[in-house]
Amino acid sequence: MSLRILVWNEGVHESTGDPANIADYYPEGIHGAVAAGLRELLPEAQVSTATLADPVHGLTEEVLDRTDVLLWWGHVAHEEVDDAVVERVHERVLAGMGLIVLHSGHFAKIFKRLLGTTCSLRWRNEGERELVWTVAPDHPIAAGVPNPVVVPRQETYGEFFDVPAPDELVFISSFTGGEVFRSGLTYHRGRGRIFYFSPGDQEYPVYLQAEIRRVLANAVEWAAPRGRERRMPAVSNDARGWFLAEGAE
Amino acid sequence: MSLRILVWNEGVHESTGDPANIADYYPEGIHGAVAAGLRELLPEAQVSTATLADPVHGLTEEVLDRTDVLLWWGHVAHEEVDDAVVERVHERVLAGMGLIVLHSGHFAKIFKRLLGTTCSLRWRNEGERELVWTVAPDHPIAAGVPNPVVVPRQETYGEFFDVPAPDELVFISSFTGGEVFRSGLTYHRGRGRIFYFSPGDQEYPVYLQAEIRRVLANAVEWAAPRGRERRMPAVSNDARGWFLAEGAE
Amino acid sequence: MSLRILVWNEGVHESTGDPANIADYYPEGIHGAVAAGLRELLPEAQVSTATLADPVHGLTEEVLDRTDVLLWWGHVAHEEVDDAVVERVHERVLAGMGLIVLHSGHFAKIFKRLLGTTCSLRWRNEGERELVWTVAPDHPIAAGVPNPVVVPRQETYGEFFDVPAPDELVFISSFTGGEVFRSGLTYHRGRGRIFYFSPGDQEYPVYLQAEIRRVLANAVEWAAPRGRERRMPAVSNDARGWFLAEGAE
Amino acid sequence: MSLRILVWNEGVHESTGDPANIADYYPEGIHGAVAAGLRELLPEAQVSTATLADPVHGLTEEVLDRTDVLLWWGHVAHEEVDDAVVERVHERVLAGMGLIVLHSGHFAKIFKRLLGTTCSLRWRNEGERELVWTVAPDHPIAAGVPNPVVVPRQETYGEFFDVPAPDELVFISSFTGGEVFRSGLTYHRGRGRIFYFSPGDQEYPVYLQAEIRRVLANAVEWAAPRGRERRMPAVSNDARGWFLAEGAE
Repeated sequence: MSLRILVWNEGVHESTGDPANIADYYPEGIHGAVAAGLRELLPEAQVSTATLADPVHGLTEEVLDRTDVLLWWGHVAHEEVDDAVVERVHERVLAGMGLIVLHSGHFAKIFKRLLGTTCSLRWRNEGERELVWTVAPDHPIAAGVPNPVVVPRQETYGEFFDVPAPDELVFISSFTGGEVFRSGLTYHRGRGRIFYFSPGDQEYPVYLQAEIRRVLANAVEWAAPRGRERRMPAVSNDARGWFLAEGAE
Repeated sequence: MSLRILVWNEGVHESTGDPANIADYYPEGIHGAVAAGLRELLPEAQVSTATLADPVHGLTEEVLDRTDVLLWWGHVAHEEVDDAVVERVHERVLAGMGLIVLHSGHFAKIFKRLLGTTCSLRWRNEGERELVWTVAPDHPIAAGVPNPVVVPRQETYGEFFDVPAPDELVFISSFTGGEVFRSGLTYHRGRGRIFYFSPGDQEYPVYLQAEIRRVLANAVEWAAPRGRERRMPAVSNDARGWFLAEGAE
Repeated sequence: MSLRILVWNEGVHESTGDPANIADYYPEGIHGAVAAGLRELLPEAQVSTATLADPVHGLTEEVLDRTDVLLWWGHVAHEEVDDAVVERVHERVLAGMGLIVLHSGHFAKIFKRLLGTTCSLRWRNEGERELVWTVAPDHPIAAGVPNPVVVPRQETYGEFFDVPAPDELVFISSFTGGEVFRSGLTYHRGRGRIFYFSPGDQEYPVYLQAEIRRVLANAVEWAAPRGRERRMPAVSNDARGWFLAEGAE
Repeated sequence: MSLRILVWNEGVHESTGDPANIADYYPEGIHGAVAAGLRELLPEAQVSTATLADPVHGLTEEVLDRTDVLLWWGHVAHEEVDDAVVERVHERVLAGMGLIVLHSGHFAKIFKRLLGTTCSLRWRNEGERELVWTVAPDHPIAAGVPNPVVVPRQETYGEFFDVPAPDELVFISSFTGGEVFRSGLTYHRGRGRIFYFSPGDQEYPVYLQAEIRRVLANAVEWAAPRGRERRMPAVSNDARGWFLAEGAE
């Protein structure tokens, strides 16, 4: 079955027209640009989009039932995301749905809910060059990605990034001013897989870059629960007998 | 300065007298037995106790201000713990307070809040023998602990235990029936350290065993924020200049 | 291109006929049984075998050039493996070839060379029941594998297993006598992937079990360097200019 | 008992007088400067030094018997270190002796022997500014260390650094040219602890900096086998009976 991907974006910068250049870079919205990149590199996949303004934020049970991997972009409206929706997405991730959190989504309720920390970081925005270096060359998310990826202009993120030590550290970025940032991180939670990737911002056309699109397509493939059971972990009170009986001497 | 330790117990089994033998094993409550073990092995430390029935559960700002390491035992009353108290403890852990979660505390609100998963597991209770094996022999929590520790009778916990992969896996247990359980786990979250240790139950006098007391004393020493800064991680928007200026060629 | 798999076995038990029942269980040798399981589950793959007695142990440059994943079984003849062959396999693994080390292969020169520790363990052999529990339910090596796998009779391995903490802990086993053992471990070294799996022995027909064959087929798929660059990591002394020039403001 | 520290340096740059400024920065040699920093910050410790030119490189059984933590600096003479000495140090580390490997020591035989990879990296030397950022704020090696540490002039190291993923990633560095490097890494091997720290070079007076000295003193304290058993892991073939008998129902 083909992969079913949902790109979620709060969509507020697009509707307010702030920053002014967002309409030039992303005439179909950030979600539109991310979705276009995925359609280009994963032509077999079914790619949909949804935004905060949609009914139930476009994240109903039915939609999530047919989603293998969810991408999440948010920035100024994290608090407007309904807590019930966050719980629903949380359960789905633990049950096996892939989740890819982008850039300022580090402060999304769902990311903080899954990681348990503040997810705070150091930042400033002066349009500096970001270099994204691969430190896990055998990781499928890094396949075909140059080392480093050069992002000509980008917001600066820096350490300390208050997240749990990742299960796999895939990318580390530097910025012209000297900051470093763990910019590509994987987590396994329940039966689900999570990838955080920091490049991408409402002011700079990062999601139009071919290398960044390659990372996102790789991440979707990696996070998808292909053939794995999708079921939320739950308490079980097993009767004792079966394996003692079966395996007993 | 001497270590300041707080042993928290919901205290419900003790007040209801269920199971009946709890008064024999733990006449001062589970918290009393844990505290006695710590006082014995860490004679310099200040050890206090608190329970659910205390005002604000005994977990006021003032109390937490003077706590280096908090131990947590709960079982049947997790839902009665006030959410505001959970948030307060959560912040303190991220700011550097040590937290040691015991046995059925795997379902405590604070543990699930910090780890982000269901923390569910497989269980049954037939008073079987638990063997606690050390798999990290250089870890300070395992110092002076026999390999294995034999717990003659204990509730059985089994995998899959739905927690993030630990930062350090210290102990793995087996039970007579054949289950295995990752029974000693460390996590680093924010500036704080967390240790989960599964042996210990209201029905069996596990906290009276010398080897179990040794593990808890070691864990307290390991989790204490000795000399480390205690401050919750927070966003910072640093001005750019200083290190470019200072470090520039 | 189809996967190219090589199953290596020292082949000494088979040629000496010790234990006597090896000819009943494994008439084509341990390598033959492992290869048969892979052919059954991965019908597209090209599966070959080689043994210690072959010229150059069957591990020439040419053979390794056309190998994606190497499986390794050894027990009594580790010291007879030529050091030059070990170096060659070591280089290939770092360059991206997958390696799956089986059971008593924990003491193979190549495993110790890659991990840097003694790889020693606790053992005894009384034909007890092994239960293999999954602790990483989203790992592709555990896909379709029951939890637990019951191995009716097997040699007992126990902790402390002196290996580095694995990059991913997939399986933990218990034995009737109460030992536990980290029985399914992944490592990433250079550009290569390594999986160690302990079930399997010359005395018991473990490699005929369907669940064990499923684990090995999954592991081969996971370890294969599909589409990833195969090149040994090397020092580079990059000229400075390009990215300063390209990325400079 | 006070800590017993041995600072080992190949000592070749010092004896050849290349680079010329080494005598200005390090009149007592690199080992002398490192030892002076440790004596300053750990006044209770016993700090000795040894070099390649000493009999048996100053690393006899007797010397290692009374060493808790060994620091290692080497650059141009790695191949001149006797293999028998490397084996001896390897065994001592697995038995619990701490090891701290400095800068170009990434290519030391002992480091490659312990880690099993090429330990290769990207480098160039133009005396750029290095910023050393803390990414594990609760780690004892980072206690009292500013974030970042500014090293005004230093050789540049960059990724990919071909080492196993560290057990703990403590520091990441950036360089003026944009490279990043995982510059502070811990490993647990056998019963021993290893810390790799990249700042420090024969051309720049890095080991005179207070912050760098603080890191090294912290690392020595962390790596020391205080009160832990010192014994190389070994195979054991335990008789079965004791815990079945003792723990049986």
